[in-house]
Amino acid sequence: MSAAEVQSRQEEPPSVHVSEGGATLAEIARAAGVSAPTVSKVLNGRADVAPATRSRVEELLRRHGYRRRRGGAQQSQLLDLVFHELESAWAMEVIRGVENVARQEGLSLVLSESAGRLTPGQTWVDAVLARRPAGVILVLSDLDSAQRTQLTSRDIPFVVVDPAGDPGDEVPSIGATNWHGGLAATRHLVELGHRRIGVIGGPSSMMCSRARIDGYRAALETAGVAFDPRLVRDGDFHHEAGYACGLELLRLPDPPTAVFTGNDLQALGLYQAARELGLRIPEDLSVVGFDDLPLARWVGPPLTTVRQPLTEMAEAAARLVLDFGRGRQPGVTRVELATSLVMRSSTAPPAR
Amino acid sequence: MSAAEVQSRQEEPPSVHVSEGGATLAEIARAAGVSAPTVSKVLNGRADVAPATRSRVEELLRRHGYRRRRGGAQQSQLLDLVFHELESAWAMEVIRGVENVARQEGLSLVLSESAGRLTPGQTWVDAVLARRPAGVILVLSDLDSAQRTQLTSRDIPFVVVDPAGDPGDEVPSIGATNWHGGLAATRHLVELGHRRIGVIGGPSSMMCSRARIDGYRAALETAGVAFDPRLVRDGDFHHEAGYACGLELLRLPDPPTAVFTGNDLQALGLYQAARELGLRIPEDLSVVGFDDLPLARWVGPPLTTVRQPLTEMAEAAARLVLDFGRGRQPGVTRVELATSLVMRSSTAPPAR
Repeated sequence: MSAAEVQSRQEEPPSVHVSEGGATLAEIARAAGVSAPTVSKVLNGRADVAPATRSRVEELLRRHGYRRRRGGAQQSQLLDLVFHELESAWAMEVIRGVENVARQEGLSLVLSESAGRLTPGQTWVDAVLARRPAGVILVLSDLDSAQRTQLTSRDIPFVVVDPAGDPGDEVPSIGATNWHGGLAATRHLVELGHRRIGVIGGPSSMMCSRARIDGYRAALETAGVAFDPRLVRDGDFHHEAGYACGLELLRLPDPPTAVFTGNDLQALGLYQAARELGLRIPEDLSVVGFDDLPLARWVGPPLTTVRQPLTEMAEAAARLVLDFGRGRQPGVTRVELATSLVMRSSTAPPAR
Repeated sequence: MSAAEVQSRQEEPPSVHVSEGGATLAEIARAAGVSAPTVSKVLNGRADVAPATRSRVEELLRRHGYRRRRGGAQQSQLLDLVFHELESAWAMEVIRGVENVARQEGLSLVLSESAGRLTPGQTWVDAVLARRPAGVILVLSDLDSAQRTQLTSRDIPFVVVDPAGDPGDEVPSIGATNWHGGLAATRHLVELGHRRIGVIGGPSSMMCSRARIDGYRAALETAGVAFDPRLVRDGDFHHEAGYACGLELLRLPDPPTAVFTGNDLQALGLYQAARELGLRIPEDLSVVGFDDLPLARWVGPPLTTVRQPLTEMAEAAARLVLDFGRGRQPGVTRVELATSLVMRSSTAPPAR
């Protein structure tokens, strides 16, 4: 038997995942007019295949729903974690969670950044196909449908850790209860006696931000406080947005006595705006953040904030993706972990 | 030719790195009384070798200074980064630097944490030998001499990113000019007119902390200000130490009017201590931090601090280790990158 035949035989048994009539590797090869080893090369992310051949094979793999037989090629002891960007202070919380699970499972963590793009590039996909990780965890990133097919056909499972709250329906993901977080933050302020409560959101394109603001609005309305669109600002999730939107809100003719910010970094920007205007926190202005990063405890005054369990979310995502890899298919593949209000010193009853 | 013979032949050519008379793989095998493929398995970190055999072979590899012929086994497209702990806020700065270089070089970053131990465990070493990264970068961690031998004999280069400033002489490392940082911070305070200047160090076992305090002392003495040991406190590099040591200093009968802290997190702890005692920064107390983490810009007041170029240090370490892997041997393998004073709003002339 030639080496090519051996390789072909290793790949050929029908996939245990494929529906009746699913194509074998040999059938894919025949349809593409190439040899079985060539299909195998495409499956393994090898570079020595002509681009036109590669796309013809990929298209056939996709059309036939081909899935590699489990164990047909050895998985590495790697677990891939991909960030949209490593800038954010909460990235470390996520890394820690995935690293915890990786260590317990004897896996090593491969960390990538998709350089600010929401979809990782083809270079990344090729590298993943070549190294065959036990699973892929994406943070605020998503795969396009061709990439999903590529990973699925190689039996490489993936899960999204999703603080943004907007993965496609078919993508397994672990998020947080953003709406409830917005509700709890705003209820706390209402219960302290605040009626003019501002809110600074993240980008309006992010579902997590919409959910938080909807929770804010629900808390106001159930308490009989009118929703005032002038007290709502859209920013991004950086310090600067908290500062700029904070100045706008605090300079209104009838400014808010409390503000719920989209995240802790924005809250620090709002702290700065308040300082510049000579407003004391919490005496003149109450502030509630979101995330509960370590720095929320360290700032002055320590920040009341909604804890998003980022490390636990990352751990859950890592366990879910490894479960997929072991053939376990949990019934629910879209999970939101609970947020909780952490009370510190940045909130108090209004002075006026 | 049998498969074992093929493998043996691949491994056998004399190492290009080894001095005249260095042992070949076959000679190591003969001396150990095992087959060449067994030595090869040990070299590749494979698990299917009896522990006693493995240590006998390792000892012979070490004694004979065996080094694998470059290219004798294929290196993976991975770059390993190991932290002592992922807790610290500056870990993200280091990750970003290594990730920048990895991306430019088409490598993927493998991230590990040695679970708080300064020396990574054998499980980690075995995994590294098996995955054959292009290089290993250690942060605040170090390898013991057996581990160094294991990596060196497999031609896996390593470099230490070393904010602690205390690697062994034979370990290539990238650090920062800690002494100059301490000097610059303290000179700035002296020039503002401060004479009672406190300092909070990191753990006294860390050379970086000793260097910073020595720089502090040098600035005082060259300015003709007497060094007062009562104004010196040793802490660790966490927020809590800044708070606790800060309270001690500020409650002295003759408290300092300015404090140079070991890092930015300690500075935030000191901020908290000052707030609790009703002291305003910078009117009643000037504070200089160390590191220039992003949060230094965000706190109130924004922190004057000594910038340690962590991202650049990590980039330099990644480039150095890849240079080693390509056979380039830079003349200097212990480099300190410059620190610089970043002036913000936490320092002012003393009120008294």
